[in-house]
Amino acid sequence: MILGRVVGTLVANRKDEGLLGQKLLLVRNVSVDGDDASGFVVAVDSVGAGEGEMVLYASGSSARQTEATRDRPCDAVIMAIVDSWDVGGDEIYRKTDADGEWAS
Amino acid sequence: MILGRVVGTLVANRKDEGLLGQKLLLVRNVSVDGDDASGFVVAVDSVGAGEGEMVLYASGSSARQTEATRDRPCDAVIMAIVDSWDVGGDEIYRKTDADGEWAS
Amino acid sequence: MILGRVVGTLVANRKDEGLLGQKLLLVRNVSVDGDDASGFVVAVDSVGAGEGEMVLYASGSSARQTEATRDRPCDAVIMAIVDSWDVGGDEIYRKTDADGEWAS
Amino acid sequence: MILGRVVGTLVANRKDEGLLGQKLLLVRNVSVDGDDASGFVVAVDSVGAGEGEMVLYASGSSARQTEATRDRPCDAVIMAIVDSWDVGGDEIYRKTDADGEWAS
Amino acid sequence: MILGRVVGTLVANRKDEGLLGQKLLLVRNVSVDGDDASGFVVAVDSVGAGEGEMVLYASGSSARQTEATRDRPCDAVIMAIVDSWDVGGDEIYRKTDADGEWAS
Repeated sequence: MILGRVVGTLVANRKDEGLLGQKLLLVRNVSVDGDDASGFVVAVDSVGAGEGEMVLYASGSSARQTEATRDRPCDAVIMAIVDSWDVGGDEIYRKTDADGEWAS
Repeated sequence: MILGRVVGTLVANRKDEGLLGQKLLLVRNVSVDGDDASGFVVAVDSVGAGEGEMVLYASGSSARQTEATRDRPCDAVIMAIVDSWDVGGDEIYRKTDADGEWAS
Repeated sequence: MILGRVVGTLVANRKDEGLLGQKLLLVRNVSVDGDDASGFVVAVDSVGAGEGEMVLYASGSSARQTEATRDRPCDAVIMAIVDSWDVGGDEIYRKTDADGEWAS
Repeated sequence: MILGRVVGTLVANRKDEGLLGQKLLLVRNVSVDGDDASGFVVAVDSVGAGEGEMVLYASGSSARQTEATRDRPCDAVIMAIVDSWDVGGDEIYRKTDADGEWAS
Repeated sequence: MILGRVVGTLVANRKDEGLLGQKLLLVRNVSVDGDDASGFVVAVDSVGAGEGEMVLYASGSSARQTEATRDRPCDAVIMAIVDSWDVGGDEIYRKTDADGEWAS
């Protein structure tokens, strides 16, 4: 899985019927230090992620292994909202109330 | 899914029978800011996209999850025409009548 | 699918039985302008492509969706010979008799 | 498979139910010489790997071919802990007691 | 498929049971000219390849389409030993007795 940050939303009214009703989010890749990295994807959201939140997304056929995406033409799905991670024993990121403005 | 812009069409008369009758479009990748990026693919069109339109395409086995592409040797499919997207609350792109000259 | 040009052939007598009898071609990636790009693959040929011809190849599990490659350990297949393509209304490439010296 | 080194752990309480109970580790890619390389993934651990250990991870649909990950939205799994490797007859890496502080 | 050269072996005693008994080889990518290129993988050997030999490896789900790798958490398999290849009519590589010191 790749670590990313939700940076925006995308609207597409004309789409394959397999994607009707799916929320599409723009996710920018982040480095292991939590900084913005190059690369981004448009992913289906299966966990109710909000803008600003750190997330994990899965790609390829694995992106179709959620309720929201099974048998759909979807190759990227957000399947987790990240609470924290550490590297070498040091905490690099911890979610605060300021993150994830849309989070319910 | 990856964000792209339809930039052209491709004709191939001699092809695997699984691709007979499919429209093949050239799609250039675009950045999160809507600018041209490096990289492009040739994708089957499942939604009636036209030149100039911003689209989403799915890759890999997920590209075979549409009516047009099921069980075909196709690894890229346009599965949505993009109407708009925003980043950090700012609208980055909104489709206008000037886009998508072939759109029906 | 990716646009490529057949640049050579490869011989491998000792191989997985799933690939016995398959023609293996070297395909160099080309840019949207038709120029040589970085990157190449060795692909199974499912359409009778010849050296010099512009082709499309599919990768991953989609490469196994042809008669020649079903259930084989093959992750790249040439599934179309390109006749022409255009970008922004301008013809970029059109196949001539000089291309594809082996084409039948 | 790709060679990596476990550098940290990640906590995500809100995730697709298919990932409940899975340990998520940060794995940095390493070069053939055993040095840190660019690129990292977040992988499910199927073998009890610990921080500092050299591991192999599998990606894509192959990442779902373990007990821990079958039918889950998981595209990267640690499926082996590396004991040693050699290149050109020279031993490049051999696991010592100092490696893998969490290893059981 | 990707062209590579076997440069070493890897030992991993603690691994997913699906990989028990499999030989793991380090394969460095080579260019179309036969020179070392960047990138390498650890691949399961399905054809009895030896150090120094030029091989083809398949990636992703296609890597599971051999007897040795079916339903295993394996995303790279050596499925052919290369005898020769040519580009533009010129022979670039031909296997000699000096190559493949372990080859049987």
